[in-house]
Amino acid sequence: MKGLAMLKIGEIGWIEKDRPKCGSSDAIIRPIALAPCTSDVHTVWEGAVGERYNMILGHEAVGVVDEVGSEVKDFKPGDRVIVPAITPDWGSKAAQRGFPSQSGGPLGGWKFSNIEDGVFSEYFRVNQADYNLAILPDRMSLESAVMIPDMLSTGFMGAENAAIEFGDSVAVLGIGPVGLCGVAGAKLRGAGSIFAVGSRPNAVKVAREYGATDIINYKKGTAKQILELTGGEGVDSVIVAGGGPDILIDAVKIAKPGSVISNLNYFGSGFGAEDTLPLPRVDWGFGMAYKTITGSLCPGGRLRMEQLAEVVINGRVDPALMATHIFNGFDKLEEAVLLMKDKPSNLIKPVVLLE
Amino acid sequence: MKGLAMLKIGEIGWIEKDRPKCGSSDAIIRPIALAPCTSDVHTVWEGAVGERYNMILGHEAVGVVDEVGSEVKDFKPGDRVIVPAITPDWGSKAAQRGFPSQSGGPLGGWKFSNIEDGVFSEYFRVNQADYNLAILPDRMSLESAVMIPDMLSTGFMGAENAAIEFGDSVAVLGIGPVGLCGVAGAKLRGAGSIFAVGSRPNAVKVAREYGATDIINYKKGTAKQILELTGGEGVDSVIVAGGGPDILIDAVKIAKPGSVISNLNYFGSGFGAEDTLPLPRVDWGFGMAYKTITGSLCPGGRLRMEQLAEVVINGRVDPALMATHIFNGFDKLEEAVLLMKDKPSNLIKPVVLLE
Amino acid sequence: MKGLAMLKIGEIGWIEKDRPKCGSSDAIIRPIALAPCTSDVHTVWEGAVGERYNMILGHEAVGVVDEVGSEVKDFKPGDRVIVPAITPDWGSKAAQRGFPSQSGGPLGGWKFSNIEDGVFSEYFRVNQADYNLAILPDRMSLESAVMIPDMLSTGFMGAENAAIEFGDSVAVLGIGPVGLCGVAGAKLRGAGSIFAVGSRPNAVKVAREYGATDIINYKKGTAKQILELTGGEGVDSVIVAGGGPDILIDAVKIAKPGSVISNLNYFGSGFGAEDTLPLPRVDWGFGMAYKTITGSLCPGGRLRMEQLAEVVINGRVDPALMATHIFNGFDKLEEAVLLMKDKPSNLIKPVVLLE
Amino acid sequence: MKGLAMLKIGEIGWIEKDRPKCGSSDAIIRPIALAPCTSDVHTVWEGAVGERYNMILGHEAVGVVDEVGSEVKDFKPGDRVIVPAITPDWGSKAAQRGFPSQSGGPLGGWKFSNIEDGVFSEYFRVNQADYNLAILPDRMSLESAVMIPDMLSTGFMGAENAAIEFGDSVAVLGIGPVGLCGVAGAKLRGAGSIFAVGSRPNAVKVAREYGATDIINYKKGTAKQILELTGGEGVDSVIVAGGGPDILIDAVKIAKPGSVISNLNYFGSGFGAEDTLPLPRVDWGFGMAYKTITGSLCPGGRLRMEQLAEVVINGRVDPALMATHIFNGFDKLEEAVLLMKDKPSNLIKPVVLLE
Repeated sequence: MKGLAMLKIGEIGWIEKDRPKCGSSDAIIRPIALAPCTSDVHTVWEGAVGERYNMILGHEAVGVVDEVGSEVKDFKPGDRVIVPAITPDWGSKAAQRGFPSQSGGPLGGWKFSNIEDGVFSEYFRVNQADYNLAILPDRMSLESAVMIPDMLSTGFMGAENAAIEFGDSVAVLGIGPVGLCGVAGAKLRGAGSIFAVGSRPNAVKVAREYGATDIINYKKGTAKQILELTGGEGVDSVIVAGGGPDILIDAVKIAKPGSVISNLNYFGSGFGAEDTLPLPRVDWGFGMAYKTITGSLCPGGRLRMEQLAEVVINGRVDPALMATHIFNGFDKLEEAVLLMKDKPSNLIKPVVLLE
Repeated sequence: MKGLAMLKIGEIGWIEKDRPKCGSSDAIIRPIALAPCTSDVHTVWEGAVGERYNMILGHEAVGVVDEVGSEVKDFKPGDRVIVPAITPDWGSKAAQRGFPSQSGGPLGGWKFSNIEDGVFSEYFRVNQADYNLAILPDRMSLESAVMIPDMLSTGFMGAENAAIEFGDSVAVLGIGPVGLCGVAGAKLRGAGSIFAVGSRPNAVKVAREYGATDIINYKKGTAKQILELTGGEGVDSVIVAGGGPDILIDAVKIAKPGSVISNLNYFGSGFGAEDTLPLPRVDWGFGMAYKTITGSLCPGGRLRMEQLAEVVINGRVDPALMATHIFNGFDKLEEAVLLMKDKPSNLIKPVVLLE
Repeated sequence: MKGLAMLKIGEIGWIEKDRPKCGSSDAIIRPIALAPCTSDVHTVWEGAVGERYNMILGHEAVGVVDEVGSEVKDFKPGDRVIVPAITPDWGSKAAQRGFPSQSGGPLGGWKFSNIEDGVFSEYFRVNQADYNLAILPDRMSLESAVMIPDMLSTGFMGAENAAIEFGDSVAVLGIGPVGLCGVAGAKLRGAGSIFAVGSRPNAVKVAREYGATDIINYKKGTAKQILELTGGEGVDSVIVAGGGPDILIDAVKIAKPGSVISNLNYFGSGFGAEDTLPLPRVDWGFGMAYKTITGSLCPGGRLRMEQLAEVVINGRVDPALMATHIFNGFDKLEEAVLLMKDKPSNLIKPVVLLE
Repeated sequence: MKGLAMLKIGEIGWIEKDRPKCGSSDAIIRPIALAPCTSDVHTVWEGAVGERYNMILGHEAVGVVDEVGSEVKDFKPGDRVIVPAITPDWGSKAAQRGFPSQSGGPLGGWKFSNIEDGVFSEYFRVNQADYNLAILPDRMSLESAVMIPDMLSTGFMGAENAAIEFGDSVAVLGIGPVGLCGVAGAKLRGAGSIFAVGSRPNAVKVAREYGATDIINYKKGTAKQILELTGGEGVDSVIVAGGGPDILIDAVKIAKPGSVISNLNYFGSGFGAEDTLPLPRVDWGFGMAYKTITGSLCPGGRLRMEQLAEVVINGRVDPALMATHIFNGFDKLEEAVLLMKDKPSNLIKPVVLLE
């Protein structure tokens, strides 16, 4: 079985592996659409999850069920399915507490291309198949569907955690594909003004389609511009989907008392010997201005995939607008990953179709 | 000063009254757009709030500030304002607890055409003007603006209280103007399927515009149809905006365990000597199926009006679609109220423009 | 293997059955402490869950692990465990949505003595053992521990769902063991006044120990007395743990606008041909007074048991105070169940110790 | 009228001022019990709120109403009242949004000894008297009552914001009087283990009385010890009530995924040219471990004072245990403030009684 793997930090390549074994509650999936993620780039070229040798990459997939374990009841070979990027252990204590993405320790729900082989393979294994897979609706395009496992789930979580009320002003810092889904999610929670921070023309265009009311070019000072546009008051919610290790400084500056700053970033580096991220003391109200800061990992699992599929098939958002680069054939996967690495200015998201 | 009043239960007419006195934190408003509400009909012809003599009707208005009290800081004569139907006492204990519409006792935030004269008058008084008025944005039509004080605020509350998550299925029982705003609100909280129950062609058309995915004709059995369409599972949320005193039976039947039934109805009559509303014992899971039932009064106050104005001016919903009948001139008010009483089949909402 | 069973509606008796088979994720438990529940009485003598033949009763148990399935990782034979009354399917969609007790349909998390044999047996089976069992702490008495699976979990849920804030007034309607745990739970959420409705001397004594500040004898009119004591305002939260099919009338009458009525009752009968439970129309504010009514089933699962064990071992509440009648030996189980059926006035809860 | 004032940064002294004027909704209060706060020390000797000249200090008071404005309805001269440290503008948009302490801008609800004269005076003024004062219950001691305006309200907020569930483990970093109230608040939300970090014998003793289960001496490494005691998992909630500008590093280290870190600290200094507070990147899960950080200002207003009074008079906590040093007479106020500045090791809180 062929797969596109991280050979070691800084290097990718095609490898051969055995087809994974199917445990009693598992399913084996053959992908029909795949998408590389910025996380794959972080993993390989920044060593974000540490060293890995010959680990198959990828966590965004739509596929066909090829085999199921003896205890799987709701899926059978031939079923077309959406596979979440995050496949929690649904009975773990973290999941029982309401935090399935953190099952088995911090970020522990993230298995593909992190602690197990990923989906960039002829076949891949899904744990707790009944709990983690969702049927792909007939009337959904593969380009749309493959955005659900991570992009839509993460971006929408950004809006959920931001506690948006009808008419709230929202700033979305960064409009890569996750930030764009944050924009769409903010609109679908009832936001009024949505300030989208970014400058790439394709992304700006989709941001407007998804509900952004103001485009902010960070080169002119994100905080300065947003404070001006809000009469110095700042916004009701901030979704952080880009920026460097000091982005929380801007986020806190533009956040009103009583707001939530909802982080979606993977922070790949910090400051100083202690490796820390800075909060601005005075703008954070000396600790007392009720500016809440939170950040989590993409929600996964079957229900999440089904719910997001409902959002898409009912026309609430069109995720396919983000698929700026479409490739056909498994052998194009490497090119797609390298495109994600290089991020040409007209790229939002590459998609690889396998059928 | 002329006003359209409830003379007694069952009778309306024009009366003369003194212009209201302006207390130190009050404002006196001259209306520029008015809308009759089904509540006005309930008040007059069903005696919904009890007997009243010569009480000026109406609680949906947009106007111009004519006078302000000595302690009003943020408004001045000439300002164009949206006036909430509900004008709470913002420091009351109920408001401090988070329930301003219930300030001063159950439903106590509702003053206009209930415990004080309403807005169908040449001038009317608003208590706590700084806390209850909101500036009318320049670029908003009066037809849109006059839907905010009650229709949008009540309907959107229906969606808020329904605890809708991304992709949830929602049933909206009744698509008069409040139910239609419930549909729009459900879409703007991220609902997937929205089952709108109603049959009038104009309302059905707007329901689809506002996000309804399925139209249910109650004459064929609301619960039966919605259960069929959901594979017997029912929906994640129910917004009740119509139906008789037994409507909670249908609502509970179609509600999934873990759902919220969010009532917007004024229940004008009940059953039996005890005057009660029935819950279906078995469908309510013998009390244990986690089907939560709640119902509140339209939220009012300045912030609410400003937030809803943000929703409208940012194009998230077009409330003017509901203004099926537009009248010009104060003297057309009686005709508009009688139209609301008669409810011809093409009516959604009458609006009276005064400038 | 011997068990105490419901032979049919209205009849109990000892039967012989095969020891249950242990599935791959199951455990087989040998009980060391058992407690009969009012639900067992409802099940047998009121046919609450419908007809059942030779179904072993009981759902409140502490035991020793006798056998585990091949996929069970965290438990081994010999472990002493608390077994929840409710053993959800933790990956089901209802559980993923946050409602595990409703997994597999309304009340579907309730398996013991409902849709499977119960715990009043020499051995019983627990599904998803890793997710549903909790280690019994060394320093906890069996009398305390056996209150956790249902009494503490249900009563505390009553307080959780009641949304109690610091200083809130709470009424607890009924002070059987579940209501008493509602009292304790209300205190442990920070309630101020707690009005406990009941009259049996033993229960009254424990209610005071658990935090009740006022004892209300329902024979003198529950609503009347509580309204008088609260200056006509009513209480911030109501926990319903007793009363007949019209108890929600009292509950709504004494509930302030903005309150929650949190039901713990199993409603065994309703009114009329439609089999309904009445809500008082006017006291419910015609549907608009923001008096929220909810009601759920006992939370189960491993985390819940562990968390409640933490409450007990840290001395926050002493559940053993409720164990008014202690029996020794498996053969005393029938006597204990019949005692629960007869409810002598000095009974709170019978417990049967098996070691 | 005599008052104890901040003359300038670094200097306090007695001054004469005119008795404040009573506006139409104000009350003038004559104090009967006063308590100095660490904030007073920060204000004077660290310049925490900036330079102030001849500003009367103090924000913790119980008093007698001496005069009320023309629009005050619920209070009259002679009433004994609890005065909140924070006296919000209850109709402001921040209050309507649910953040009254942030009314009029960040921390804007804090008026006494910040933007207006404080309570260490023969008479002081309270804005929106009907909304901000609460009747002192007859049966409450002054030592208890004077802890309510700030200590209890702030400490309990720490527990509220920490989102504690039954059985949760909680760490309270710092057991000065606010931290001690955090301990008491955590217990009254149903916490299991409570790890209290501190070493002063008097404070440790009260921490145990208030519900601490483990005392942690920070000199041996707070994070290290708490991680050891929790098997490396950390705690469900962290209340921050002490420590230096890098205390969030410890807080994040010991916080489980899915926890809340609830800050009560005034951060008086930060690091570097940008004046920032550090978050530990890796322990914060690279931004994705769902460790939420929040922090607010003491809640104020009438309802809060009344609710906390209910907690106290119903015996849920005894705040008088914190009053380690009691002075009699207005002229002892300076000594009490200097004691707070010097913080001898046996001090928890000084109180000055004036009758």
